[in-house]
Amino acid sequence: MRDYQMEINLTTARKQKPAFDQLQFGRHFTDHMFVMDYSTEKGWYDPRIIPYQPVTLEPSAMIFHYGQTVFEGLKAYLSKEGQVLLFRPKKNMERMNRSNVRLCMPPIDEAFALYALKQLLSIEKDWIPSYEGTSLYIRPFIISTEPFLGVAPSNSYRFMIILSPVGAYYKEGINPVKISVEQEFVRAVQGGTGNAKTAGNYAGSLKAQEVAGNAGYSQVLWLDGKEKKYIEEVGSMNVFFKINGEVITPVLNGSILDGVTRDSIIRLIEHWNIPFSERKISMEEIYQAHKEGILEEAFGTGTAAVISPIGEFYWQNEELKINNGETGELAKKLYDTLTGIQYGTHEDPFGWRVEVLEEALKI
Amino acid sequence: MRDYQMEINLTTARKQKPAFDQLQFGRHFTDHMFVMDYSTEKGWYDPRIIPYQPVTLEPSAMIFHYGQTVFEGLKAYLSKEGQVLLFRPKKNMERMNRSNVRLCMPPIDEAFALYALKQLLSIEKDWIPSYEGTSLYIRPFIISTEPFLGVAPSNSYRFMIILSPVGAYYKEGINPVKISVEQEFVRAVQGGTGNAKTAGNYAGSLKAQEVAGNAGYSQVLWLDGKEKKYIEEVGSMNVFFKINGEVITPVLNGSILDGVTRDSIIRLIEHWNIPFSERKISMEEIYQAHKEGILEEAFGTGTAAVISPIGEFYWQNEELKINNGETGELAKKLYDTLTGIQYGTHEDPFGWRVEVLEEALKI
Ligand SMILES: Cc1ncc(COP(=O)(O)O)c(C=O)c1O
Ligand SMILES: Cc1ncc(COP(=O)(O)O)c(C=O)c1O
Repeated sequence: MRDYQMEINLTTARKQKPAFDQLQFGRHFTDHMFVMDYSTEKGWYDPRIIPYQPVTLEPSAMIFHYGQTVFEGLKAYLSKEGQVLLFRPKKNMERMNRSNVRLCMPPIDEAFALYALKQLLSIEKDWIPSYEGTSLYIRPFIISTEPFLGVAPSNSYRFMIILSPVGAYYKEGINPVKISVEQEFVRAVQGGTGNAKTAGNYAGSLKAQEVAGNAGYSQVLWLDGKEKKYIEEVGSMNVFFKINGEVITPVLNGSILDGVTRDSIIRLIEHWNIPFSERKISMEEIYQAHKEGILEEAFGTGTAAVISPIGEFYWQNEELKINNGETGELAKKLYDTLTGIQYGTHEDPFGWRVEVLEEALKI
Repeated sequence: MRDYQMEINLTTARKQKPAFDQLQFGRHFTDHMFVMDYSTEKGWYDPRIIPYQPVTLEPSAMIFHYGQTVFEGLKAYLSKEGQVLLFRPKKNMERMNRSNVRLCMPPIDEAFALYALKQLLSIEKDWIPSYEGTSLYIRPFIISTEPFLGVAPSNSYRFMIILSPVGAYYKEGINPVKISVEQEFVRAVQGGTGNAKTAGNYAGSLKAQEVAGNAGYSQVLWLDGKEKKYIEEVGSMNVFFKINGEVITPVLNGSILDGVTRDSIIRLIEHWNIPFSERKISMEEIYQAHKEGILEEAFGTGTAAVISPIGEFYWQNEELKINNGETGELAKKLYDTLTGIQYGTHEDPFGWRVEVLEEALKI
């Protein structure tokens, strides 16, 4: 870890906190934020924790025009004993750097970023809600800031971490959702940016979501961009199936995001000795499995919702109901185990929990 | 056109202008900008011309995270007689609205946007450089501004128009460039956002450009995302070929941007009775044509560079030199005709020029 000098400037006007038992997702932000700047000459410089405040940029700042940006999403959990817990946070910092490479952006010092996050969390501990299913959502992101119109990598960037106390991502909770299989729009294709966590992927996905939403579906199931045959993700989540006792998830092929939840589920499933494979899965295969009555479960996975069971697929004018539209046993077990590990109520066989210790705070 | 009340607030501190004979592209901005806001409740409101100034947004503003944004690019030209001329500006406003649809963003009133642009240009007339090849680059853009973390269309937006006096886009001028045919990365795929002018497309294109640049090429030739066989665009331009007397350009297939320059060239070529077709073109076909000695010309087309002749392609370890690495006759004729129409020195058979009249300014 590089030895940066971190400046900490605390607010004198703390905000009133929202009601922690009625939190929406992503609407409230804490009193402070982490900020660090980059220039081609200086590298990353001036790390600081400052009062949460607006960002001021030139109208020509490249982020507004050419979209060079990456982000991450993870959570801090409060245990019953009052510990502040993170879940595999290194994975997020590593992924952020993989996204940086794809977007021609400068790498961050992963260890320092994690240290800065812990410092910020120590200051904002009171903002971590403790109600069931609530947590403090952490959003690290980097934006390109150079005031220049021209398609080229920016020469300056800003790295920020903001925090948002959140309730459950889906108001429905872990209730199964109805999913439409997307036939027209494509989220990503090999050679594109699908395996990077970058803004453009999400902007491009809105239209399909809107069309599906108007037809009464929660999300879309994305098929591959080449043949529109193979399953990639569901909404902004990775996707798993259980067919005839075997758990299957699409193999990472360059257009799928390498989810931290996905990886954790794979490790749990292998730990439990449940048959598992990571491979190409066509929608036709899912259709056949459903017809034969062996499509036992389907669910999305991601940091925000953890597990989101799929109760029904709509594909080619047919409704494929799964497990009677109810949450499957495996989805429930994974949800309980993962959230148990995250909140510190379940043993942590893989050492995934990272406690944020008060001493981390050095002003 | 809706009857908006436009507020005009002129600066009291005009900037010093850069040397107009040494302009770079996209580095200097004029004294004023146009701004207009949108909210779901009010629609577009509060149009105003104000001193050029920074934009202040919440760190959670959706533009920073989910990339919902569109932009346009056109130019104002100063004729020898001192007229301010635009080139087919309606086309840009129409395309902006097509991009808005794809990105789930609210449509603008095209006629009002053009009116606002003309007002802004009347105020900034002194900023239009008059040296050969220079012009005032116009950048309309819309960003999503709602402070919310969640993948959904924003409920608020800001539409801005900024102006930048520019020299030639490529320092090389209309000199032929060396182009590498991209085999790994993909700009866009059908069902994606390739035919919208939105930030993510450009962010995703940087990596290929970087790799090609390091190998000594100016830009990449993009192939289709499905089979990596068919030619789509070159850099951020449309692409044309002349093979055995016939001009060919890839047909708009959903992943190619519908360029205003492209459309204008097609109309000129048809007007000149040059054989022309708009169709799928494979790189293999170009290779064969080159081998047979009938690949006469290749060039990119776009507002920034107008025409950018291609002197050489690099594909599968072979260098395909075109027209001896020199600017072709057709490229030269198109460049002269288009710039002649744009600057008012050439007759305007299609009525493409739009003069910005002083009376347009109503304060
Ligand atoms: C497109 C996409 N896929 C999958 C995921 C799941 O990743 P993770 O489990 O790391 O949250 C996310 C992010 O949350 C995502 O944005
Ligand atoms: C990706 C891309 N293709 C093509 C073009 C050419 O379009 P136009 O001729 O309207 O400038 C542009 C923009 O300038 C572009 O960004």
